[in-house]
Amino acid sequence: MKSFAPKLTLNQKGQSLKVIPLGGVGDVTKNMYVYEYGNDIIIVDCGVGFPDEGMPGVDLVIPDISYLRDKKDKIRGILITHGHEDHIGSLPYIWPALQAPIYTQRLTAGFIRSKFIEHDLPRNKIVEMKIDQKLDLGSFKISFYQVSHSVPDSTGIVIETPVGRIIHQADFKIDWTPVSGQVTDVGEVARLGSAGVLFLLIDCLRVDKPGFNKSEKSIEDTFEKAAVDTSGKLLLTMTSSNVSRMQQAINVAQRVGRKVAVLGRSFEKNFQVARDLGYLHVPPGIIIAPDEINSFAAGKVLVLIAGSQGQSGSSLSRAANEEHKQIKLKEGDSVVFSADPIPSTESAQNALIDSIVRLGVTVHYSAVLSDLHVSGHAALEELRLMVNLIKPKFILPIGGTFRHMRSFSKMAQEMGYQKNQIIDAEDGDILNISRETVKLDGRVDVQNVYVDGLGIGDIGHIVLRDRQKMSEEGVVVVVVSLDRHTGKLTGDPDIISRGFVFEEFAQDLLDEAKRVLSDNLAQHIHKNTDWRFVRKLVEDSLEKFFYDATGRRPLVLPTVVEI
Amino acid sequence: MKSFAPKLTLNQKGQSLKVIPLGGVGDVTKNMYVYEYGNDIIIVDCGVGFPDEGMPGVDLVIPDISYLRDKKDKIRGILITHGHEDHIGSLPYIWPALQAPIYTQRLTAGFIRSKFIEHDLPRNKIVEMKIDQKLDLGSFKISFYQVSHSVPDSTGIVIETPVGRIIHQADFKIDWTPVSGQVTDVGEVARLGSAGVLFLLIDCLRVDKPGFNKSEKSIEDTFEKAAVDTSGKLLLTMTSSNVSRMQQAINVAQRVGRKVAVLGRSFEKNFQVARDLGYLHVPPGIIIAPDEINSFAAGKVLVLIAGSQGQSGSSLSRAANEEHKQIKLKEGDSVVFSADPIPSTESAQNALIDSIVRLGVTVHYSAVLSDLHVSGHAALEELRLMVNLIKPKFILPIGGTFRHMRSFSKMAQEMGYQKNQIIDAEDGDILNISRETVKLDGRVDVQNVYVDGLGIGDIGHIVLRDRQKMSEEGVVVVVVSLDRHTGKLTGDPDIISRGFVFEEFAQDLLDEAKRVLSDNLAQHIHKNTDWRFVRKLVEDSLEKFFYDATGRRPLVLPTVVEI
Repeated sequence: MKSFAPKLTLNQKGQSLKVIPLGGVGDVTKNMYVYEYGNDIIIVDCGVGFPDEGMPGVDLVIPDISYLRDKKDKIRGILITHGHEDHIGSLPYIWPALQAPIYTQRLTAGFIRSKFIEHDLPRNKIVEMKIDQKLDLGSFKISFYQVSHSVPDSTGIVIETPVGRIIHQADFKIDWTPVSGQVTDVGEVARLGSAGVLFLLIDCLRVDKPGFNKSEKSIEDTFEKAAVDTSGKLLLTMTSSNVSRMQQAINVAQRVGRKVAVLGRSFEKNFQVARDLGYLHVPPGIIIAPDEINSFAAGKVLVLIAGSQGQSGSSLSRAANEEHKQIKLKEGDSVVFSADPIPSTESAQNALIDSIVRLGVTVHYSAVLSDLHVSGHAALEELRLMVNLIKPKFILPIGGTFRHMRSFSKMAQEMGYQKNQIIDAEDGDILNISRETVKLDGRVDVQNVYVDGLGIGDIGHIVLRDRQKMSEEGVVVVVVSLDRHTGKLTGDPDIISRGFVFEEFAQDLLDEAKRVLSDNLAQHIHKNTDWRFVRKLVEDSLEKFFYDATGRRPLVLPTVVEI
Repeated sequence: MKSFAPKLTLNQKGQSLKVIPLGGVGDVTKNMYVYEYGNDIIIVDCGVGFPDEGMPGVDLVIPDISYLRDKKDKIRGILITHGHEDHIGSLPYIWPALQAPIYTQRLTAGFIRSKFIEHDLPRNKIVEMKIDQKLDLGSFKISFYQVSHSVPDSTGIVIETPVGRIIHQADFKIDWTPVSGQVTDVGEVARLGSAGVLFLLIDCLRVDKPGFNKSEKSIEDTFEKAAVDTSGKLLLTMTSSNVSRMQQAINVAQRVGRKVAVLGRSFEKNFQVARDLGYLHVPPGIIIAPDEINSFAAGKVLVLIAGSQGQSGSSLSRAANEEHKQIKLKEGDSVVFSADPIPSTESAQNALIDSIVRLGVTVHYSAVLSDLHVSGHAALEELRLMVNLIKPKFILPIGGTFRHMRSFSKMAQEMGYQKNQIIDAEDGDILNISRETVKLDGRVDVQNVYVDGLGIGDIGHIVLRDRQKMSEEGVVVVVVSLDRHTGKLTGDPDIISRGFVFEEFAQDLLDEAKRVLSDNLAQHIHKNTDWRFVRKLVEDSLEKFFYDATGRRPLVLPTVVEI
């Protein structure tokens, strides 16, 4: 138990504390929070978001740090709560602009180092903290406490500020028998609560789930049963940072006498980091290389494989499509999905399960077998317990969508809170915190920043809108050649299309379109016609013509060539 | 109870019975089955499928009837099991090519007539059958029996064939207290089972769900509680064919003294058909027009509204975006989602719920409140009961994906069936049925046929592949002008792009691309250069250039203009 006297500096100059969520409020991912007091800024988390259906071709979404651009010198540190992508994934893209030291626990630091190596960034600003180490960051005094979550070394962060104590409790759950042994430190939480907490930011994602989560430990029996029941290879798939579950798989493999292979790039990387740092206990001789899989009897092999969400190109998806060099799925093999689909990947996961079943392989997934996955997020009773231990004056529910925030508010009101004690904010809102109040005080402009290929932030709404339109209706390119001197057409316009109609079958339609267009152009253009007018005329006449003929509205792209 | 002596014609000429699923096997939707014996064909169901993520811009998917093209004269009838879109939705597109009489129950006939009116098709071949009426269709003798499902007038179809009795049991459940009063006729099913059934085709979608479904009746209490607890308007959303649930909403409105408005085109249409045919009992004076909603106190209004899956453009989605003329959502109102999301619509439904919550409206959805929806499909114990009553020699599980088929097979084997009695087939497989065996005997070519705008079947894989590529990476159009006489470039190529980079910010990139391209062209082309070579050169150089510069691979569309 730490003793950390709450000696707060008085808020003498009338300076206020600002808390600004840049991502993670009204949203499950892309977590990033700014705490600002006078000349001091600290940041908590720096995660990625994942593209939804309205963002075709986008690889990742990262928080908008425009607000921080001219404040680099004020940033005293970046604190990271735990090692999940939605809390660390933006660091390689954003850290170069901030350059501040990163403070976090050992395993998380390992994951971040591994990213920085890949992105060729310096690692000397990544600072490993012990759980009971404290930090002095300008106006802020920082300490950590341990929580259970689906990755080891997860923490709550205590931020002592000139206006009062704040607790930033990102993803957590209460598990009395976690695989990592890291139990949520309810004693420390209770002590902080008794000493007084002004403001709590807390994970609200699973507030709609009644009761308590089952312990992560319960999964191991399920794995063991599958290992015993399977005559062929046993494949286990899960999210690539779920170190505890990897440990359970290894424990089972050891007991039933199977060798373990690890397939998938992010999986191998995280496995290696966790093993090197001592977070995975691997008996000697149990791990085999992917290309050794076929040297062992199928019944003697357990494979940890990436791709639990049905991501195309992942190891499991290639194995399902019989395109993986090192692993062939056969009748007698089993695949265990130990991860629930996240809403946007449900269809992909279902399709993947189906392709595997078609190979004659047995698949265990949550609809047919419970006990395959335990959430890492606190359910209703765990949230109630935490709020009761901390007893903050104000609460901002984070890491959930608006309906989770609303449910959380309802829960808190049932516990005796007033509605105005539960803050209703969204990304970009500036929260002004005093000893007595939390007030909305203007907004910072936050937009989605997209990572696409090598580009960061170089595509926006217009590009995505065009992509969506083309994906739904296709594109029609029209080349109009005009005589430079007379302004007349020098011949029929050229029309080519993609994604609109199958050109071989639609030649008549395209010929007719040319004819209509030529007539229209001949009628309306002359020597001095503005090119913009020509373009507009092409767009209007073809949009109308194609809609009447096909009911579709392709993107019409006119180009005018002067000859 | 019917008595229908199983006097089977002997299979004298050695002719075989073929059963060919054109859609609905290994697939939840797009149901269509061909039964063929000698010169006689009957068809069961004619449904639509819904586009997945790989089919951007596609409105509907319909079964491929190529196999039937030259067999129109053999088709004795189209039998429809019930009135859901995935069983009737393709009729307006396919019936004109088949022209055979359609036999089905009264409400289903009403739904089909309403479609045919909209598509301007003749209605004189739609034949209403009574539940105990029999049909003689060439080599096939047909009877129906009643089943419970989420739309009234759902049936099982008994097909007496020269090789034995077949039961086609599409969507059903066993509900002893259905709202429509139409209980699954287990007596008749048992009688058929005792008399001997050769082959059963049966809905397997919910085989992974243990136990029995709750009765549809249980929903009414939930609606009533919501109606009583809500001070403002109560909105109920569900699938537009769920007549029983509409009835329950009206019952509740009547009891609590609310008026009922119906919003949404398909909803209004189905409501009207069901009411006209006596399937909805509507007390006089309870229905109000959409534009009367605001003339009543909010607490006196109940609205049945379309859009339960989060479809963009639906009434509920417009109301959530504050774009609906007739209904404004306000604090105090409640929206009840009485339909589980289907996998591909989960994200859209979640986003819709979130927008409604942000308006301050209370939303009831399945994660926070059970008893909001009851499935229309038999769960595990209902399937076991049905199989036990029918005791068929062979079974083909239909209306589910491969994993559901696999689970069904496992269930049947646990009940004593041999593995080879449960048929493992997919769409297009020709099943050859004799008194003793069901054998796979070749395949019919079936492809997805896409409906897009006014076009049916005019787009295929190539068009969709282009759409997907453009949606992910954008398009770059290049116009190269060549001198007709010298074969030289007459100037810099023109480059325009959409969905690739934001052109205003990427002018340098595009200028550099022009330069690289000009150099390449100048080097490699001359007077007699083939245009195809020029195009290929443009594609290759720009694809490489853009990939190196941006990590993206836009679709490059070169056009060459001769001057």
